[in-house]
Amino acid sequence: MFARTLTFAVALTATAAFADPLPSWNDTDAKARIIAFVDGVTDADADTYVTPADRIAVFDNDGTLWAELPVYFQLIYGIDRIARLGKENPDFLTSDVLKAAAAGDMETIMASGEKGLLEIIDASHSGVPVDEFLADVRDWLGRARHPSTDMPYDEMIYQPMLELLSYLRDEDFTTYIVSGGGLHFIRAFAEEAYNIPPNQVIGSALNSSYKVIDGVPTVVKDPGIAFIDDKEGKPVGIDAKIGKRPIFVGGNSDGDFQMLEWATAGEGPRFGLIVHHTDADREFAYDRDGHVGTLNRGLDEGPDLGWLIVDMANDWSSVWP
Amino acid sequence: MFARTLTFAVALTATAAFADPLPSWNDTDAKARIIAFVDGVTDADADTYVTPADRIAVFDNDGTLWAELPVYFQLIYGIDRIARLGKENPDFLTSDVLKAAAAGDMETIMASGEKGLLEIIDASHSGVPVDEFLADVRDWLGRARHPSTDMPYDEMIYQPMLELLSYLRDEDFTTYIVSGGGLHFIRAFAEEAYNIPPNQVIGSALNSSYKVIDGVPTVVKDPGIAFIDDKEGKPVGIDAKIGKRPIFVGGNSDGDFQMLEWATAGEGPRFGLIVHHTDADREFAYDRDGHVGTLNRGLDEGPDLGWLIVDMANDWSSVWP
Repeated sequence: MFARTLTFAVALTATAAFADPLPSWNDTDAKARIIAFVDGVTDADADTYVTPADRIAVFDNDGTLWAELPVYFQLIYGIDRIARLGKENPDFLTSDVLKAAAAGDMETIMASGEKGLLEIIDASHSGVPVDEFLADVRDWLGRARHPSTDMPYDEMIYQPMLELLSYLRDEDFTTYIVSGGGLHFIRAFAEEAYNIPPNQVIGSALNSSYKVIDGVPTVVKDPGIAFIDDKEGKPVGIDAKIGKRPIFVGGNSDGDFQMLEWATAGEGPRFGLIVHHTDADREFAYDRDGHVGTLNRGLDEGPDLGWLIVDMANDWSSVWP
Repeated sequence: MFARTLTFAVALTATAAFADPLPSWNDTDAKARIIAFVDGVTDADADTYVTPADRIAVFDNDGTLWAELPVYFQLIYGIDRIARLGKENPDFLTSDVLKAAAAGDMETIMASGEKGLLEIIDASHSGVPVDEFLADVRDWLGRARHPSTDMPYDEMIYQPMLELLSYLRDEDFTTYIVSGGGLHFIRAFAEEAYNIPPNQVIGSALNSSYKVIDGVPTVVKDPGIAFIDDKEGKPVGIDAKIGKRPIFVGGNSDGDFQMLEWATAGEGPRFGLIVHHTDADREFAYDRDGHVGTLNRGLDEGPDLGWLIVDMANDWSSVWP
């Protein structure tokens, strides 16, 4: 009985080894390079072998694991929440940009620049216990729909990247998100969407504090930025939370440049990957221009640094799950 | 062959289940309560069952996992490093407290209060790449000796707590350190001393930055405090890094009160543990008074909150490994 179970398990493993780990990737160079890298670091007899404890893989979120146009989905959530808070209490709308958010006036919001956008994030993401915030984001994700695709936001995730995450985990990598987006916002869906638990999410964060409220010990989200996990902040965030230099890094914009640069400069085998949005038919096509996901250095310097530039239109056979 | 290996593995597991998981704990109420809790959360048929992903255990470091008298060992490292930096470059000693540190003048150092101590930590823990800092701490641990025991500092760890960490991990808990001490300082020895990897260390931290130095991408420790992981900071640090409320928490001072309060207030089975230093013969005896490891609220309120107060002298059969 034991022997039979084991034989069955061995047979399953053998099947898995021959199955295609990345079925939504076309048979192009991109797929071959990823598989060759993973084979190299998992082959105990190879010079390129990396012990499982050091198989750290990190991925940006917006534009790398899920879509990011027309604007970061987190901003759309923030605008929605401000509209709801303003309805409950009009005094909450203390500035022109908050009033514009409550009215859904995207033109005024976008014209307000970084300062205005941060005010929206600050006002919509603070003054609430962490648990309530997570529940509110999940509730929003359940009813909100993307303006052009009409899809739930948490279904606008990239099937080929889901397969890459699973493949890496099957090969004993630990997979992290390292995002300029909000730590708590991403945690609200990362476990269900990507199978990435809360302790493997690194992100930007507002301040937090611990308070006993009506006798209930509570961690509360407060106004003010504690950490921006973008550009030079990404290696800093990875060091603070993981304490190891990743060997596999995926991103899509110049906000990811420094973490790719740092990780791929380490000793031993390293893999840098950039998702290049080339697919206007199935998703969006954008890179050097625009206000979201701007990609210049990665295209200019990435290939010489050995990074894989994934061409969504050519390298992926499907986009959505 | 497969069947025989498996039978052997089953036999080993059965032996382990009947072996004493906490051999350095006397057969007192403390040990019985710990084992009853672990049995309860790991029994899949019990109401108290907790899924492995939620078996989060966190421990303070100074005074909980290793000793902390006559002063935090990290301060002794800082003083040693300032003396070395001052020897290389006397201009580095820009203040009276740094000069006192270089001279090993503990009286002046302690009289300088929190401001002076922070200046020593700031000056000794910054201006250095993270990797070099970790190597320097390890180097120091290899040669420094405790003033009264003459033991290496990283051997002044508590054998009963090592057994508790192993026991919890054997029962599919994930064990974290949550310390007021420095993140990088603790990481330098936590994996070897406690089997706790860098991503499971939460601590106070100075600022860090990412720089390309002579073409080498580097994360550098900078002056200035980024986060104090003490008192109200501990639940905040746990939320930021783990994102779940622990079900098992160990501490020894009032700096741990809030994390015990928060964790043990959660739903379902929870365990709060306070190491009470009652053993002047084998270690030290101290609690309500003194400048390190002050314990008042834990003794006054802990028992009513259901926390276990571990009496080192009575509950532990040995202290050091």
